[in-house]
Amino acid sequence: MLFKKIISEGLAHNSYIFGSQGTAVVIDPRRDIEIYLESAYENDLKIQYVLETHRHEDFVSGSTELAKHTDAEVFHADLQLDYQYGKGIKEGQSWLIGDYDLEAISTPGHTTGSFSFLLKDADKTDWILFSGDTMMAGDLGRTDLVSEKLTKQMTETLYNSLVKKILPLHDGVIICPAHGSGSVCGSDISEREWTSLGIEKRTNPKLQFKTKKEFIKKNATILDKPPYFKKMEELNLRKNKKSFTKRVIPLSVDEVAKLSQKDDYQLLDVRSNLEFSAAHIENSIYIWEEGLASFAGWFLSYDKKIILICEYSRLETIKTILGRLGFDNVKGYLSEGLFGWHREGKKSSNIATYNVNMVCEKLDQKNNVEILDIRDSDEINNEGKIKNSIQIPLVHILENKIKIPTDKTIFIFCGTGLRSMIAASLLKRTGFKDIAIVLGGLSAWNSSKFPVCENVNENNEKE
Amino acid sequence: MLFKKIISEGLAHNSYIFGSQGTAVVIDPRRDIEIYLESAYENDLKIQYVLETHRHEDFVSGSTELAKHTDAEVFHADLQLDYQYGKGIKEGQSWLIGDYDLEAISTPGHTTGSFSFLLKDADKTDWILFSGDTMMAGDLGRTDLVSEKLTKQMTETLYNSLVKKILPLHDGVIICPAHGSGSVCGSDISEREWTSLGIEKRTNPKLQFKTKKEFIKKNATILDKPPYFKKMEELNLRKNKKSFTKRVIPLSVDEVAKLSQKDDYQLLDVRSNLEFSAAHIENSIYIWEEGLASFAGWFLSYDKKIILICEYSRLETIKTILGRLGFDNVKGYLSEGLFGWHREGKKSSNIATYNVNMVCEKLDQKNNVEILDIRDSDEINNEGKIKNSIQIPLVHILENKIKIPTDKTIFIFCGTGLRSMIAASLLKRTGFKDIAIVLGGLSAWNSSKFPVCENVNENNEKE
Amino acid sequence: MLFKKIISEGLAHNSYIFGSQGTAVVIDPRRDIEIYLESAYENDLKIQYVLETHRHEDFVSGSTELAKHTDAEVFHADLQLDYQYGKGIKEGQSWLIGDYDLEAISTPGHTTGSFSFLLKDADKTDWILFSGDTMMAGDLGRTDLVSEKLTKQMTETLYNSLVKKILPLHDGVIICPAHGSGSVCGSDISEREWTSLGIEKRTNPKLQFKTKKEFIKKNATILDKPPYFKKMEELNLRKNKKSFTKRVIPLSVDEVAKLSQKDDYQLLDVRSNLEFSAAHIENSIYIWEEGLASFAGWFLSYDKKIILICEYSRLETIKTILGRLGFDNVKGYLSEGLFGWHREGKKSSNIATYNVNMVCEKLDQKNNVEILDIRDSDEINNEGKIKNSIQIPLVHILENKIKIPTDKTIFIFCGTGLRSMIAASLLKRTGFKDIAIVLGGLSAWNSSKFPVCENVNENNEKE
Amino acid sequence: MLFKKIISEGLAHNSYIFGSQGTAVVIDPRRDIEIYLESAYENDLKIQYVLETHRHEDFVSGSTELAKHTDAEVFHADLQLDYQYGKGIKEGQSWLIGDYDLEAISTPGHTTGSFSFLLKDADKTDWILFSGDTMMAGDLGRTDLVSEKLTKQMTETLYNSLVKKILPLHDGVIICPAHGSGSVCGSDISEREWTSLGIEKRTNPKLQFKTKKEFIKKNATILDKPPYFKKMEELNLRKNKKSFTKRVIPLSVDEVAKLSQKDDYQLLDVRSNLEFSAAHIENSIYIWEEGLASFAGWFLSYDKKIILICEYSRLETIKTILGRLGFDNVKGYLSEGLFGWHREGKKSSNIATYNVNMVCEKLDQKNNVEILDIRDSDEINNEGKIKNSIQIPLVHILENKIKIPTDKTIFIFCGTGLRSMIAASLLKRTGFKDIAIVLGGLSAWNSSKFPVCENVNENNEKE
Repeated sequence: MLFKKIISEGLAHNSYIFGSQGTAVVIDPRRDIEIYLESAYENDLKIQYVLETHRHEDFVSGSTELAKHTDAEVFHADLQLDYQYGKGIKEGQSWLIGDYDLEAISTPGHTTGSFSFLLKDADKTDWILFSGDTMMAGDLGRTDLVSEKLTKQMTETLYNSLVKKILPLHDGVIICPAHGSGSVCGSDISEREWTSLGIEKRTNPKLQFKTKKEFIKKNATILDKPPYFKKMEELNLRKNKKSFTKRVIPLSVDEVAKLSQKDDYQLLDVRSNLEFSAAHIENSIYIWEEGLASFAGWFLSYDKKIILICEYSRLETIKTILGRLGFDNVKGYLSEGLFGWHREGKKSSNIATYNVNMVCEKLDQKNNVEILDIRDSDEINNEGKIKNSIQIPLVHILENKIKIPTDKTIFIFCGTGLRSMIAASLLKRTGFKDIAIVLGGLSAWNSSKFPVCENVNENNEKE
Repeated sequence: MLFKKIISEGLAHNSYIFGSQGTAVVIDPRRDIEIYLESAYENDLKIQYVLETHRHEDFVSGSTELAKHTDAEVFHADLQLDYQYGKGIKEGQSWLIGDYDLEAISTPGHTTGSFSFLLKDADKTDWILFSGDTMMAGDLGRTDLVSEKLTKQMTETLYNSLVKKILPLHDGVIICPAHGSGSVCGSDISEREWTSLGIEKRTNPKLQFKTKKEFIKKNATILDKPPYFKKMEELNLRKNKKSFTKRVIPLSVDEVAKLSQKDDYQLLDVRSNLEFSAAHIENSIYIWEEGLASFAGWFLSYDKKIILICEYSRLETIKTILGRLGFDNVKGYLSEGLFGWHREGKKSSNIATYNVNMVCEKLDQKNNVEILDIRDSDEINNEGKIKNSIQIPLVHILENKIKIPTDKTIFIFCGTGLRSMIAASLLKRTGFKDIAIVLGGLSAWNSSKFPVCENVNENNEKE
Repeated sequence: MLFKKIISEGLAHNSYIFGSQGTAVVIDPRRDIEIYLESAYENDLKIQYVLETHRHEDFVSGSTELAKHTDAEVFHADLQLDYQYGKGIKEGQSWLIGDYDLEAISTPGHTTGSFSFLLKDADKTDWILFSGDTMMAGDLGRTDLVSEKLTKQMTETLYNSLVKKILPLHDGVIICPAHGSGSVCGSDISEREWTSLGIEKRTNPKLQFKTKKEFIKKNATILDKPPYFKKMEELNLRKNKKSFTKRVIPLSVDEVAKLSQKDDYQLLDVRSNLEFSAAHIENSIYIWEEGLASFAGWFLSYDKKIILICEYSRLETIKTILGRLGFDNVKGYLSEGLFGWHREGKKSSNIATYNVNMVCEKLDQKNNVEILDIRDSDEINNEGKIKNSIQIPLVHILENKIKIPTDKTIFIFCGTGLRSMIAASLLKRTGFKDIAIVLGGLSAWNSSKFPVCENVNENNEKE
Repeated sequence: MLFKKIISEGLAHNSYIFGSQGTAVVIDPRRDIEIYLESAYENDLKIQYVLETHRHEDFVSGSTELAKHTDAEVFHADLQLDYQYGKGIKEGQSWLIGDYDLEAISTPGHTTGSFSFLLKDADKTDWILFSGDTMMAGDLGRTDLVSEKLTKQMTETLYNSLVKKILPLHDGVIICPAHGSGSVCGSDISEREWTSLGIEKRTNPKLQFKTKKEFIKKNATILDKPPYFKKMEELNLRKNKKSFTKRVIPLSVDEVAKLSQKDDYQLLDVRSNLEFSAAHIENSIYIWEEGLASFAGWFLSYDKKIILICEYSRLETIKTILGRLGFDNVKGYLSEGLFGWHREGKKSSNIATYNVNMVCEKLDQKNNVEILDIRDSDEINNEGKIKNSIQIPLVHILENKIKIPTDKTIFIFCGTGLRSMIAASLLKRTGFKDIAIVLGGLSAWNSSKFPVCENVNENNEKE
């Protein structure tokens, strides 16, 4: 027997391979499929089935690629959409994987066609539920993605799926969802890597309800939807997706100097935030490596070629993360890095960084400073905020609804100082000059016991 | 959060590392501890606690080694025994691992002092039970190891632990036992790698009982106890165990030729069974690599130095497996293998192999042949047996209770042909000459639809 | 500066990458080109030139593949042939690699167009000669490959290249040839991995001559030409060669059982010779892994699909070795090996093995036995031979010139017992039944001080 | 045959393993000896001899460690010194390594006892000279290390060794020295990784002489001697050196905060120079990773424990580099890095960085600025220098001979901006406040065509 959860970090996406007696099934594969092939072959298994629990909005599916390298049949839950491949799935349909039965359970809500798959133990006891985006540890699937207008309706559909199909299963069923903590497909997914229905019933805040109405009120939420979801939806419909390659091409200092001037190129800097602060190439977009899966889809363009600024040893990983988001437009990387850039006398730019105590001093001096806080409202509620700060969540930083003053020094705060640097790089590109990021962010501020106010109060004050 | 199950294959031993917010705990560590250190350090964790659920009989514990390389405190459940290290554990005692509580639950039965450890989720819901050898997927801990005489009594103790402590937990609690399928610490452990209390309640055959009496009757079983358990028990009491090293020293053909003549040396051949059959050095003990964890402790001596015959690329793994069983007496390996041995004109020995159809022909010819079946009674019950065959389970092959005729050709059968080769190598060392092993064993026999009889019937016939 | 010799073991093929200041050149690349790309990129180099010293007969060139993945220009020495790609090379042409000059020196002889490339040190001193197949450690290029009839003429051409172009260089020039010890492109290449012109002048036996006539007499030799050379010559002319992939597909026991019956399939067994001897699938061709590069091109067909019998862990390496020889016709591998084959009750075949002392006894008994010695004449001259043995070099074993008796037991001897197994597998396919191979071969025979006679004497005796 | 050059990067130290027919010799091993054992064992070789060409001043020898793990005999050239281990070597003494002879040739000069070892090819031709520190590519061994006063005398001794022993060998002999480009054991070692006597005769500038007098004048040079050489000399005399371990212990933010206040601790920051510039812990010593082998021995104390600030993935490499220099006093590393440091609100420090164009502007403004150039005189001669700059080579930066003004902004220049950061970190520790480093250094300056003056002229101007 082979049972393996494959976690794509950053995306916090889980796929699964299960095999027995020569036959294997893969559930919700990602685009870089080597790991499924290797796992199967090492265990003398052939991948015969690939199942998709639902339309994936946040990554490029690997099901067609897997089918290309094996003789596997692909089954897709959301075939009501315009998919060019895959077979449909029916309630109760089952696949025999060696000694084990895997049964389809229709669980719409997150999407119109969502299915969960219930694996039975050899003696037919319900064992594992591959729940896709229907239920995750500590969270439920978003119901606002089919259409914001239909959110309530989809939430009711989800209610029915849960109440009629999933909650009746015995408490010991192990829940294997398509996403873990950190995914944009859920707002509150728990770190709890292994969970069961019994645990979810007891601890999942979204399952604490008495009536359908209460459930809908609680869960019919509209969350941010990264612009790249649209691209994923399109790409995933296609039968012939580009195969994934990891290799990236080196570019010389002169090549990067030239290309970076062109409109159809974008520089993506994936070094540490401190390196970026000390020196970066003018106009670069900053995202730290672990943040790529969450933020590249918000701030990079599919229409411009990407030039990477990062260490050689990180290239393949970075290319892989971008590839999972469908960014195949990576032209190359600056082969000698900023070191080569400077050695050849090229100019670079920097962004000031401050320790919290220095920020505090500046504020006390009542200088011409402003605090820009780019955390989400949840974080603000949990950790408090600094008095008189401007709140704009990072993903909305380029929208012009709230004015950021241009005649003051802007200190950018986030939780720890990483997202601040994304914000700083983006604001600089739009013309801001006097920007600084705060090292350690609110975490440092709170560790140093500097004063915060509650979210509500200040809003009142402001009014 | 870090949560990782570390499986020692062969032994089918599970250890666990769990960490949060800089602190980690390791449960039931094995002797080669690199993996715990690396996992912890990669995740910015310090191992502060090492917990032993019970006295381990089947492998050398790594708790003292871990303590040597960290500042960890060791806690041991079975401190009523003469352990030279570790602190005792009390019912309800708990350890704070970052945001999570880990609580001790006294669950004697497998040993007198056995504890299970219950990890609570951040919101205090019962989440994971590290159940040691008290409960495993599809099985319960053996109760015959404290003392055969006390088996019933220990089974009753186990009953109480289960009924009072474990079964009352909610069904969704995930069970993380110290052993998986293949371990000698349980007779029927299931392949089910992840399980929950709810699943065990429904499927674990040993939990299907109505009365205490029925439970005891069912579970008070005496199983084979490998002789090396005694060594493990002794070794594990010691505070200062030898540190583990993987390196093995090459020996030339001439050195091996000389040493293999000495009484205090034993040759262990770990190549494929086909290679062994074609040519091996006289007097070698054969065990295939994946069988080492199960059979080395039965047939190797701690008092003789081991000379390995195997491929260079397998050396470190083999040394590690032996080391986990406390075999530190590996002198070296035949550096050029049988190839070098033959090239220098040394003599080798062989063991005949037969396909099942050829065995069938020989039997039909009523030749002077005898079938020796070395499978366990469970296997015989499940797969049937060949008429008129002699049954001696492999681990009893060197005992002289049942006579194997010396004037006939002995065809050795096991399930697939691997254990047969162990038996053949052992019998040859005791003087048997006309031995052959059957390729594919009973599995081949049954695949070929050759006739088998049920176990009971033949016994009746024999009587 | 980057200077790296890349050895393809088995083939004993050397390729080179040299780079400086951002620019790299690759000389005589093989087909699996990852290593060149990685070496270049890690060192911040772009591969700008790919040079071929001559037409390669023994492996598939990677120059077009490299050009596909880089912007490199390909230059080919033998463009007088019908190559579909590459630019020609002129005497004295040079390429600037950072601070270093690489200069073309026309050195025909091995082929009509062969060039050597002389790398100058930064201060312009002659430093390294990439000598292709013109000069190797202890050997010179074969002159019989252009056409057997032109051997003398090509040897004279080679003489001129050496005397006019290479020998006049200073003695300290380091010689970097395209092949090392074990290559079929030279009969006597030395193990000396690094050499210089001065060392070759002193020790290379083929350079010990006084007159042109003596040189030609000594070196105009016709050697065996493996049949696959023809395929290589054809393939290498093509611009669009298939890209190389390492992955091989698992096949079940039943699939292999079916496919192995078909005429357009061939079973290639690459396990140890002992495993093959104990059990193999009827009709398999045996070649041990390290022997593949030398013998696959003799005994495998490009027109039949290959089914591999080998360990999973060796698959990628074996596929790579076959791929370098242009064998892209690998269908898959028997995923559970002979173990699975037997378990499902399939029949297997075996080949007897003997220790030399047993062979000796048989010979003494004047039984109905015959010795077949498959070593080359060089080996026979060096190591002696057994009286009354039949000599047929392995590569001629399937030719019907010399009769092997079919009514006797044939003991096959080679140097150590590996090639014998190839011979045995081939003879068995043609109907021989009573074949045995001798473990340790002549080496064991001589180690055991059994009598040998000199080659000449016996020939005399025979006459 | 096995012949392998093992390069310890950074140190630019070469050691060698050569083996044939079961026997291997290692020449000048480093302290982390795994690679010798693995190479030997993989090739079925036993290391029987370990040879030291001379007393090593720049790294900890691994000869005693190797002897501990094998049965090898150690032979040491400089046994006139107080070595506690090893056997002496005599002129002409030879070791048989399989088919090959290795012969000792006395070549004093670099040290009093230095030997070179001449490997003969199987047919007894001189093949490879392991020349230790006597002759390197483009350089000769330093003659000032025995004693500065004896430099001339040792240079004459070296002259005799060369003229009588080495230069008479044939030009084709391949030279395998103990050091490559970048070593502190030679001032001008060439990048030429493989060389021969003929090439050295033609290109090695130190071998271009007509008379002994000229040779001595040219080569009797006194170079900087890093203070750690003394420690190496002491350590290498000992028989019982500490075995090397790679593991480093994680330290929490609070632990580092406490320990860094103590006198017997030193913080070593091995991140990129840009990260250091943006934020570092007060009082840290900066050295970039590739610079460690050259500069750790100048600026770190053996008497203080080291706390590392670096990425987790680099730890083992950094620990290895430090270990080769005998720095076993590594206490641990800041496990969450500066990210964790800031998150907990700890203060950090920074160092300003400037592009060359900005420096130029500042200079033009005739502001209160000073340029500190820390390059060596060779570099200054080759690349020119900036007018009115202060010259202090990095290794003398903490000596108080030349005054650096404290009332001005100091712009530190080196070749590319890496060494400047070392200098900046050191000067800051002594109290300097207004320090900046110039990104790209002189290389950027020259790429930008800013004016430089020749070394001599300005000196004249100054006078």
